[in-house]
This record gives sequence, structure tokens and C-alpha cells, in this order.
Amino acid sequence: MEALGRTRWALAEGYIPPGSHGPHPQMLSHETLCLLNTSDQDADVRIIIFFSDRDPVGPYRVTVAARRTKHLRINDLADPAPVPIDTDYACVVESSIPIVVQQTRLDSRQAENALFSTVAFPA
Amino acid sequence: MEALGRTRWALAEGYIPPGSHGPHPQMLSHETLCLLNTSDQDADVRIIIFFSDRDPVGPYRVTVAARRTKHLRINDLADPAPVPIDTDYACVVESSIPIVVQQTRLDSRQAENALFSTVAFPA
Amino acid sequence: MEALGRTRWALAEGYIPPGSHGPHPQMLSHETLCLLNTSDQDADVRIIIFFSDRDPVGPYRVTVAARRTKHLRINDLADPAPVPIDTDYACVVESSIPIVVQQTRLDSRQAENALFSTVAFPA
Amino acid sequence: MEALGRTRWALAEGYIPPGSHGPHPQMLSHETLCLLNTSDQDADVRIIIFFSDRDPVGPYRVTVAARRTKHLRINDLADPAPVPIDTDYACVVESSIPIVVQQTRLDSRQAENALFSTVAFPA
Repeated sequence: MEALGRTRWALAEGYIPPGSHGPHPQMLSHETLCLLNTSDQDADVRIIIFFSDRDPVGPYRVTVAARRTKHLRINDLADPAPVPIDTDYACVVESSIPIVVQQTRLDSRQAENALFSTVAFPA
Repeated sequence: MEALGRTRWALAEGYIPPGSHGPHPQMLSHETLCLLNTSDQDADVRIIIFFSDRDPVGPYRVTVAARRTKHLRINDLADPAPVPIDTDYACVVESSIPIVVQQTRLDSRQAENALFSTVAFPA
Repeated sequence: MEALGRTRWALAEGYIPPGSHGPHPQMLSHETLCLLNTSDQDADVRIIIFFSDRDPVGPYRVTVAARRTKHLRINDLADPAPVPIDTDYACVVESSIPIVVQQTRLDSRQAENALFSTVAFPA
Repeated sequence: MEALGRTRWALAEGYIPPGSHGPHPQMLSHETLCLLNTSDQDADVRIIIFFSDRDPVGPYRVTVAARRTKHLRINDLADPAPVPIDTDYACVVESSIPIVVQQTRLDSRQAENALFSTVAFPA
């Protein structure tokens, strides 16, 4: 299958809730970038994180293998620096080939979890 | 009415939560592809499921009759193979004529359900 | 301001949950079409409801006044026929001038409400 | 990085839930416009709020600094007038340079919070 999607995506909403209820890792409050690479080539992906009060951080680099999806928890990003919890952020995702990007958050600060997901904006 | 929408759609987020609370089938944790065919012809739809660590599976074939909607639970797909629960996936939906695709998840792993829905990406 | 948006929109997901918890009308399980008319002319809107197992019903007709928003509960549609609860549906929204359409559902079948909202697909 | 996004966005859904459970300000029921400015220039942003039964109010003016995101709670808008709670509204966001806009609502009227987020419509 050909490479579906776009090579650049943006999300203006980003926030890792502080605190969680329920078993880890499933019910840990988290935010996930879901990346889909439908093509026969690996996708080299660069993520830039924007903040409200400091310079952007990145790029974070990940590879999405050919014909695979990767559901990447923002919580797990480490290099060049972890993304702080309880902090407003936004992100831009750039890829060497077209991919599809969708954002999901699970917020378990309260006893029952809350959930959203939205397709990112193809920038 | 003419055929509205597109012939190819993608969703990078996919996950069937393991475990449920509440009466079945309504409160069973599930993920649904909502398909709308506004035209006067049946739509032959093919769904490909992508994973993080194995080759894609499919096509799953469904028909959306003329001037009908079909809300298809991923949980119910069986041929060529069920979609495993508690497993990250993504999907591409291809149709013989333009349709509209929207994704919904109900997560009842905790006592109170969580819900999201998003229009798929027209790839 | 000019008329922003599109004249035709589609949503493949539609479902009015049966049963509710909490005070009415706010916590009544419902699905809402949010319509925004930014222009200086009234918008004549027609809504067609599609089902999985019967012919489409409509048009339902509503007016969105110039420079106004209307948040229309599907539960409240009556002419030509109420939209049944606990039934899969989808819809197409057509307008005499460009408008913006967004869908929201509040599901209070369980003690705590669940919520989603998504911008409709500009068909 | 260049200015990503668009200079005009619309959201037909808007509602600040009355009443909240949990600690403030995090669990206060709120609606947020998330704005991302990826460029090297500040973005001058104007927000117009539309209602169902009265004339639009605005513009509300905010600046999103170069290479920053701003997560703006509608609850906090004050000039020219606060946005009333428990009232249907919609909004248009205009910017001097391209930005990305996403809407998020946290509804804590009940003991457990509900959450949605959606990318706005690029009008």
C-alpha cells in the first residue's frame, strides 16, 4: 500500500494529568500520539514540543516501521528531556514519508477515567 | 442523494479495552467504525488492520447498503481473524464508492464508562 | 462577517442513549448538532437521518438566524418523526448558506456522565 | 519553523458547565481554546463569541508569543465581557498569522470528570 497521510501534523492541546487511579500502566494518566505508517518504507519521525513559557524542546526521534502503527506515550519520551507533567504543551510531528497521526488522552485523576481522541491537524 | 465522503479513510488509534462493567452488549467495552453510505448503490468496504509488531491483517469485507449506515464493532470482526483485545492497532478503510467514516470507543473497564468519537482522516 | 464553513456536512455516528442519571434537561442523555451561522443572512437547514435497516427520514428543517448559533438536540426533533432512542443512526446536514457543524453526545446511562464532541465532516 | 495552520478557525460547540467537583483550578468545569504559534513572530488573535439569542460579543484579544502555545480558558475571558456559564455559545478565532486551534472541555458537574477535545474547523 502507498504511504497514506501527510508529512506534517500539529496538535495545539497537550497535557499529562498529574496523578492517577487504577492499575499501571493501563490506567496511568497519559497522552498518546498514535502514528500509522501504511507504506513499505520505515518512517523517520521528529516531534517538537511547544510550551507556554519556554522555548520548544526537540526533536524527539522515533521510527515507525513499514506497515506498522506505533502508539507512543508522551509520558515515555526521554531524549532530549522528559515532557513535564501538569504542564500545558503542544506539538508538531514531522515525518520523512506520509503518516497518519491521532492523539488520545486518558485522565484518571479521579476514580473513573475520562478519555478523548482526535485526529491531528494536517499542517 | 449522491455518494458523499471519500473512498479511503485512516485511523491511527485503535484499542479494544480488556474487561467491562455493566450490561452487555451496550456497556461491553468496544470500538466501533461508523460507516455512512448516502448513495443509491451498495458500498463494498475493505478494512485493513495494522499492528505495532506484526504484519497487517485483512481485508475484512463488509457491505454498507445504499442509503444506510452501519455501525460495525471491531470486536465482532472474525474473518480472516478476530482483532485481539488489549492490543494497539490502527486501520485503513477503503470503499468502492465514497462513504463517511467515524470512530467511537466505549471504555467500561472502570465502573463508569468513558467515551470518545472522532471523524476519521480522509486519506 | 462572511458566511464561514460549508453547505453540506455528514456524521456517520449517531445514537441517543436509553436511560439517564441526573437532573433534566442538562443530564438527560442526548446528542446535539451545534450549528454556527456567522453570516448576516438566516440559514435554512435540512437534516436527513440515515438508519441501518430502514429508509432515511427527513428532511427536518430548522433555521439558524444570522450571526447566531443553534445547539439542536436530536432528541427534540419531531417533524416528520422523532428519532428513536437506542438506535444507530447517521446524518447529513445541508444548509442554504455556509455554516459550521459540530456533534456532541452526553451519555448519562451510568451514574457519571461521559461526553464527546467532534467537528462534522465537510462533505 | 514557518507559521503552521490557518488564520481563521471556527467551533460551533461551546458551553461552560455550571458547577464543579474537585480541586480548583484543575477540576473546575471549563472550556479551553488551545492555540499554537509555531512561527518566529507573535500572533495577534481575535475571538468572537456567538450566542443563540443575542448579538455576538468581541473581539476578545490575546497574543500568542512566537514559538509558544497558549491554553486559554474561556472562563477567564473578561474584556469586553465574561462569557456566561450554562449558556450555549460558539466561536470564531482569527489570527494575524497562521496558528493551530483545538478545543477542550472538562465537565466536572458530576463527581467524576468527563472530557473531550477536538481540532477546530479551519474556516
